[in-house]
Amino acid sequence: MSQLSNPTTGTAESVSADRFRRIRGMTLDLTADLSEEDCCVQSQTCCSPVKWHLGHTSWFFERFIVRQILGADAYDERFEFLFNSYYNAIGTRQPRSQRGLLTRPGLGEIMAFREVVDDRVSRALERGDLDDDGLALVELGLSHEQQHQELLLMDVKHLFSCSPLGVSYASEGRPAPADPGPTTDVAFDGQIASIGSCFGAHPAIFDNECPEHRVFVEPFTLADRLVTNGEYLEFINDGGYTRPDHWLDLGWRVAGTAGWSSPAYWQQVNGEWHEFTLYGPQPIDLASPVVHVSYFEADAFARWAGARLPTEFELELAWERGSEGAMLCSRAFHPGTACEPDGRIRQLIGDTWEWTSSSYGPYPGYCKPDGAVGEYNGKFMCNQYVLRGGSCVTPRDHIRSTYRNYFEPEARWQFAGIRLARSVNA
Amino acid sequence: MSQLSNPTTGTAESVSADRFRRIRGMTLDLTADLSEEDCCVQSQTCCSPVKWHLGHTSWFFERFIVRQILGADAYDERFEFLFNSYYNAIGTRQPRSQRGLLTRPGLGEIMAFREVVDDRVSRALERGDLDDDGLALVELGLSHEQQHQELLLMDVKHLFSCSPLGVSYASEGRPAPADPGPTTDVAFDGQIASIGSCFGAHPAIFDNECPEHRVFVEPFTLADRLVTNGEYLEFINDGGYTRPDHWLDLGWRVAGTAGWSSPAYWQQVNGEWHEFTLYGPQPIDLASPVVHVSYFEADAFARWAGARLPTEFELELAWERGSEGAMLCSRAFHPGTACEPDGRIRQLIGDTWEWTSSSYGPYPGYCKPDGAVGEYNGKFMCNQYVLRGGSCVTPRDHIRSTYRNYFEPEARWQFAGIRLARSVNA
Amino acid sequence: MSQLSNPTTGTAESVSADRFRRIRGMTLDLTADLSEEDCCVQSQTCCSPVKWHLGHTSWFFERFIVRQILGADAYDERFEFLFNSYYNAIGTRQPRSQRGLLTRPGLGEIMAFREVVDDRVSRALERGDLDDDGLALVELGLSHEQQHQELLLMDVKHLFSCSPLGVSYASEGRPAPADPGPTTDVAFDGQIASIGSCFGAHPAIFDNECPEHRVFVEPFTLADRLVTNGEYLEFINDGGYTRPDHWLDLGWRVAGTAGWSSPAYWQQVNGEWHEFTLYGPQPIDLASPVVHVSYFEADAFARWAGARLPTEFELELAWERGSEGAMLCSRAFHPGTACEPDGRIRQLIGDTWEWTSSSYGPYPGYCKPDGAVGEYNGKFMCNQYVLRGGSCVTPRDHIRSTYRNYFEPEARWQFAGIRLARSVNA
Amino acid sequence: MSQLSNPTTGTAESVSADRFRRIRGMTLDLTADLSEEDCCVQSQTCCSPVKWHLGHTSWFFERFIVRQILGADAYDERFEFLFNSYYNAIGTRQPRSQRGLLTRPGLGEIMAFREVVDDRVSRALERGDLDDDGLALVELGLSHEQQHQELLLMDVKHLFSCSPLGVSYASEGRPAPADPGPTTDVAFDGQIASIGSCFGAHPAIFDNECPEHRVFVEPFTLADRLVTNGEYLEFINDGGYTRPDHWLDLGWRVAGTAGWSSPAYWQQVNGEWHEFTLYGPQPIDLASPVVHVSYFEADAFARWAGARLPTEFELELAWERGSEGAMLCSRAFHPGTACEPDGRIRQLIGDTWEWTSSSYGPYPGYCKPDGAVGEYNGKFMCNQYVLRGGSCVTPRDHIRSTYRNYFEPEARWQFAGIRLARSVNA
Repeated sequence: MSQLSNPTTGTAESVSADRFRRIRGMTLDLTADLSEEDCCVQSQTCCSPVKWHLGHTSWFFERFIVRQILGADAYDERFEFLFNSYYNAIGTRQPRSQRGLLTRPGLGEIMAFREVVDDRVSRALERGDLDDDGLALVELGLSHEQQHQELLLMDVKHLFSCSPLGVSYASEGRPAPADPGPTTDVAFDGQIASIGSCFGAHPAIFDNECPEHRVFVEPFTLADRLVTNGEYLEFINDGGYTRPDHWLDLGWRVAGTAGWSSPAYWQQVNGEWHEFTLYGPQPIDLASPVVHVSYFEADAFARWAGARLPTEFELELAWERGSEGAMLCSRAFHPGTACEPDGRIRQLIGDTWEWTSSSYGPYPGYCKPDGAVGEYNGKFMCNQYVLRGGSCVTPRDHIRSTYRNYFEPEARWQFAGIRLARSVNA
Repeated sequence: MSQLSNPTTGTAESVSADRFRRIRGMTLDLTADLSEEDCCVQSQTCCSPVKWHLGHTSWFFERFIVRQILGADAYDERFEFLFNSYYNAIGTRQPRSQRGLLTRPGLGEIMAFREVVDDRVSRALERGDLDDDGLALVELGLSHEQQHQELLLMDVKHLFSCSPLGVSYASEGRPAPADPGPTTDVAFDGQIASIGSCFGAHPAIFDNECPEHRVFVEPFTLADRLVTNGEYLEFINDGGYTRPDHWLDLGWRVAGTAGWSSPAYWQQVNGEWHEFTLYGPQPIDLASPVVHVSYFEADAFARWAGARLPTEFELELAWERGSEGAMLCSRAFHPGTACEPDGRIRQLIGDTWEWTSSSYGPYPGYCKPDGAVGEYNGKFMCNQYVLRGGSCVTPRDHIRSTYRNYFEPEARWQFAGIRLARSVNA
Repeated sequence: MSQLSNPTTGTAESVSADRFRRIRGMTLDLTADLSEEDCCVQSQTCCSPVKWHLGHTSWFFERFIVRQILGADAYDERFEFLFNSYYNAIGTRQPRSQRGLLTRPGLGEIMAFREVVDDRVSRALERGDLDDDGLALVELGLSHEQQHQELLLMDVKHLFSCSPLGVSYASEGRPAPADPGPTTDVAFDGQIASIGSCFGAHPAIFDNECPEHRVFVEPFTLADRLVTNGEYLEFINDGGYTRPDHWLDLGWRVAGTAGWSSPAYWQQVNGEWHEFTLYGPQPIDLASPVVHVSYFEADAFARWAGARLPTEFELELAWERGSEGAMLCSRAFHPGTACEPDGRIRQLIGDTWEWTSSSYGPYPGYCKPDGAVGEYNGKFMCNQYVLRGGSCVTPRDHIRSTYRNYFEPEARWQFAGIRLARSVNA
Repeated sequence: MSQLSNPTTGTAESVSADRFRRIRGMTLDLTADLSEEDCCVQSQTCCSPVKWHLGHTSWFFERFIVRQILGADAYDERFEFLFNSYYNAIGTRQPRSQRGLLTRPGLGEIMAFREVVDDRVSRALERGDLDDDGLALVELGLSHEQQHQELLLMDVKHLFSCSPLGVSYASEGRPAPADPGPTTDVAFDGQIASIGSCFGAHPAIFDNECPEHRVFVEPFTLADRLVTNGEYLEFINDGGYTRPDHWLDLGWRVAGTAGWSSPAYWQQVNGEWHEFTLYGPQPIDLASPVVHVSYFEADAFARWAGARLPTEFELELAWERGSEGAMLCSRAFHPGTACEPDGRIRQLIGDTWEWTSSSYGPYPGYCKPDGAVGEYNGKFMCNQYVLRGGSCVTPRDHIRSTYRNYFEPEARWQFAGIRLARSVNA
């Protein structure tokens, strides 16, 4: 199916000024209805202000294309300091926890900066001023832009959830409820699988997906849809949050300290469960997939259900048998209900990211790239777990079979849900 | 001298619609050049966003005048929750540490709310709709407004100091440097002093200044001007921050944990001391009073200097022999240099608050008022120290001889400085 | 009455080898039934191991008498480091929080050190080798010893309370229950009181009691006995811990964070209140004075009861009209019930320390002594509150009318209780 | 070589009363020279007092053999609470952080308890009262005992390192210095490896080693000896702790917060590096393996050296080509220098544990055992990293090719060192 194509197979759209403008423009579309105040505030350290996302993604293009390749001057020398993120190799930077204190430059100034950067890069693309390395960096910049589109929606969701006033980001477009029907387990044989990709085969491939290598995967089954809110509520009602035997020891301690008794954004109002969504607070829809659970909750649910989380290799193997749910292009902003059973592994792409039991680590033979882009992925390979498949706020052309997302096991503000797997005894 | 008049002596201006509008308007003047983003962000828990100050002061008038006395409806029921501060008696409220997360309502909505409240209260004053109790509450509201004028300048200063870009709040008006000359000690006899005031004698009197009572004050002297930056620098250069024998034990521990080696807002740039001011970063002016020191630093400096901090009673006794420095009405926004010696106790009013060695506690016979206003002062009477005299950001008609300000001994973001005192052996 | 004599009046016993041995021996009596393990462990940072108390009090005599005056060598150079406490002037020292990690030297070695120090000092006293300054230092050392007798009982109580096994320190001697009868308020006139003492008048006087000075005390009344457990239980049952209007703001926050719902050492077992005592866990005796309350709880109780805490000056004035309860010499180890009303202010001495509303600060003209003993008291004069009158674990000859004890307002492991006072309107 | 035999291959000694007594007796030998105080104190939360180790290991036998199988009564019901560790399934327990507060029962009582338990279990073994399940539990208890032998030495080392007095645990037996010569890389082919073991094949096998399964291992090389202190010192001197590009992001933050600038237990005295050992403080021996490094330091060193850490599968594959260094039976108590090159992978067993890049997780098809022993391993499978090969304080008959030890990446008090690996490009 065309929609499941991978960049690595060569069908991906090539870099062009049009595509550059379209992806950059998408970011502006997503922030169009936010006020200057909405764009300025940082609601927790792991989030960034929208204004920072807008500045940082532009900085990336200015730094690596406009300045490094085109040799142009900086638009404003101060932005180097403000909008660098984790690139130790490049210089000092505003501490992450204090990004929300930058009331100046104002949103208007950042927008002006974006426009200038966009013009310069567009013109370079139109004129063919960039060689293959330059085009690869633009491609990386566009991947980066798309990551920040998802991040800014995550961050806006968290910010708005802190308001006691029931603020909403969007008013229409929420997927209609539907009946996903029962779950079927789909079986896979044990096999030597080829995992990962080849760095440089396509510019969009991240270093953490490389190199391609062999993994022995024992026989397993995968549930053909995500776990629903209704199923998760059974877990809650069965004492899921009060019985330590379901939980990893660390998860039990984290949940206790934080006082978790439901997924993030859930709360009971007059005895009814509600969740905060980008459409504001809503009653829980039992048929929709559960979302905003930590790795610990996903793992505990799976153990309670007599199953386990899949490995990232199992999900990569399953890719070509999957079908697709809501993604950013449909402007759903919330996971949709699974379609009717269709013989495929439903919701494998989109709706929610799927926690895997795979610790995020380097593939055999992994080398981080030289220079600042070498800080992109490799240094985070510790105490994080891989998620696969993209979510309702992931751009469709950003995701692929080998794509590895990763978060700390306690993180809950990303759109992460649960797919169950089982080992098959030979 | 008229400028040293006290409200208690009856010379204070009475409550009128004009005075109401003038004081409320001053708040808007002070925030006129701030952007929506500047007004939204909270840079530390003890600070509040400017927008919150604007909403909270209006809430005070709406709550106690418009709703409680005039019986009108709330402008917006949600503001009760958002802009109540510490009044447990009235209801739940937005947690203090999360005031900066309220990107909505926007600044424009708060301004509209202010306008409506101002109209209602002004009209009631013009029509004479308020009895004495009502007028007393308006007076309290205006005192409260003036306190928040000072607070918002403190908070903007802290916010802007967090920017790496050297932002400034004001561009002109900074007091010109001058030579304050040497310090002279002014002597006072031992005596039974009458301290404090009579609650209700004048509506502006706070409960914490009452009741009037007798205190035996032993003979003492007071320095006739504030300690300067130059004198404080001698303390620093003499190892002031590295020798525990100058310090209170708790102060030594706090300073060590926080890594203090100078007053707040000071930093060395290329070996030269600078301080962040509301005019942006500036080289230290040696003749200006040191400001933004904690009680611990003030106390350590005094011990190093072979003196001590005054008690609040000593400063109250000295009031009628004092003269006045910069205050908010002069829009100085930074302490000025002492005038030439004039036989009076210079800078007793204005320039910087003066730390006293008096723990903030109730006067004998103190009773907190009934109702929510009873939460205004009394419940903070623990582990705080009294400051007297007002600062360059205090409105002149807000301060008086009996006025007690108070902060935790580690607080440094208020405009607090040092005056030395000495006991005289009989 | 002789038992209320003050050292300042010259009736105190003079320093002698006998008295030295008796007071030093008392410490050993108090620790005789403790195991090596009991003596080694530190159960919270503000407590010290018994072994450390034994070493530190001996170090004091070795440092200031044996080495400084007699010019002898140190018993063991390492002890200088281990058993110095807060004397920054003398050298580095084992961090307070790590005193419990010193498993070596063992208890036996500390006992041997004590014996050698005791011999040397006793012999010097017998031979008359010490001049007046030396005798004054011995006197200070004995005061210090007695302070540590009380501290070690406080610390053992805390340690044993941490055991789930119901350990007890003592088995007999607990005061028998009795009916204290109702409370009567005793009235005092307003007056200029002479407060404090004259440094050097008697060696036992601490610097913080000096100098003698005049204080104007407004008319007041004092309850003629301590608040009982029964009265405190009424406060609890009336929602004392759940209604913020009784509390200081800081107290409310401390109590909330710590989860207080009763005095320290209280817990409910099958619906019945028990308290941990040095006799092990016991059912609450309603007639006994409440003990192990913080300043915050004492203050909240007083406000709930329509009264207030006394000032330290009021209690000093009341001294000559007081009578005495259990003290260390009676080996009660727990506060006793008040005797029958006797026209005096019962329990003013002994049973429990009495929280005052007086912040611990320097008296007018206070000078800290030179050298290391200057660190004894003055540097703690911040954010602490004065307690007066001694407790059931205070040696009788250690306490006097001018004696100022002090603790942070949140501290609860000292034997502190509540006496109510009231202002009298003229 | 016989010393490399695995329990799984059937050559392990079977359970007997003699073996039981020998292993239990080893624990007593290791603690024979410790005082009651040494055995009581807990120096950090992750450590336990020696007394607790002695009680807990006995509790294990009492709980699972004496009570559960033999049906006897508890020696002392209170010990159930005190000496249960993490077995949520069994009941509440003394909080881990407060194990050091148990001064009672004293060491003598714990020893009496041990003796009774040992008698009961020995007699049961002699009489043949235990069936296979019972014998398997004894075997598990002996493995558990051996784990605690290592743990108690780790914990004593930490405790003694906190003393400013230079305490030592042992006085003789330290391995003599030697010259290990250069490192050679030993090559391994890519292959499908059989990893892990079969649960129940031998009672000593832990659940986390099971089930046996297939893993594809790409070609790699392993260094034939551990990294030495001298090599690690080059890393330090080359700015290893000050250059973020060597480090995982999390490691860089942990190291910064903790202020690491060398392995644990290292400190500079007069410019010379020393390390605290069980023989007391000693100058660094450059030829000995570096030990007490965190995963973060091991990983950063490997990156600096142009290599990487091995996976746990690579070390398991290498087992049969390894040779052995110091272990607990040689009572070395500190890692020894590598022997001369011998064609084998030196120090693969013993000297120091070897950090691997493998996150500690379940093998495919892993099932945790039923009941309380199911809490032994599985619930810790998150945010920990696997170490292989045993150390100088591991009993030789405790370790095997499939043995998986695991610690958080920041842990440093275990005897962990570094072996380098490299990927081989096909």
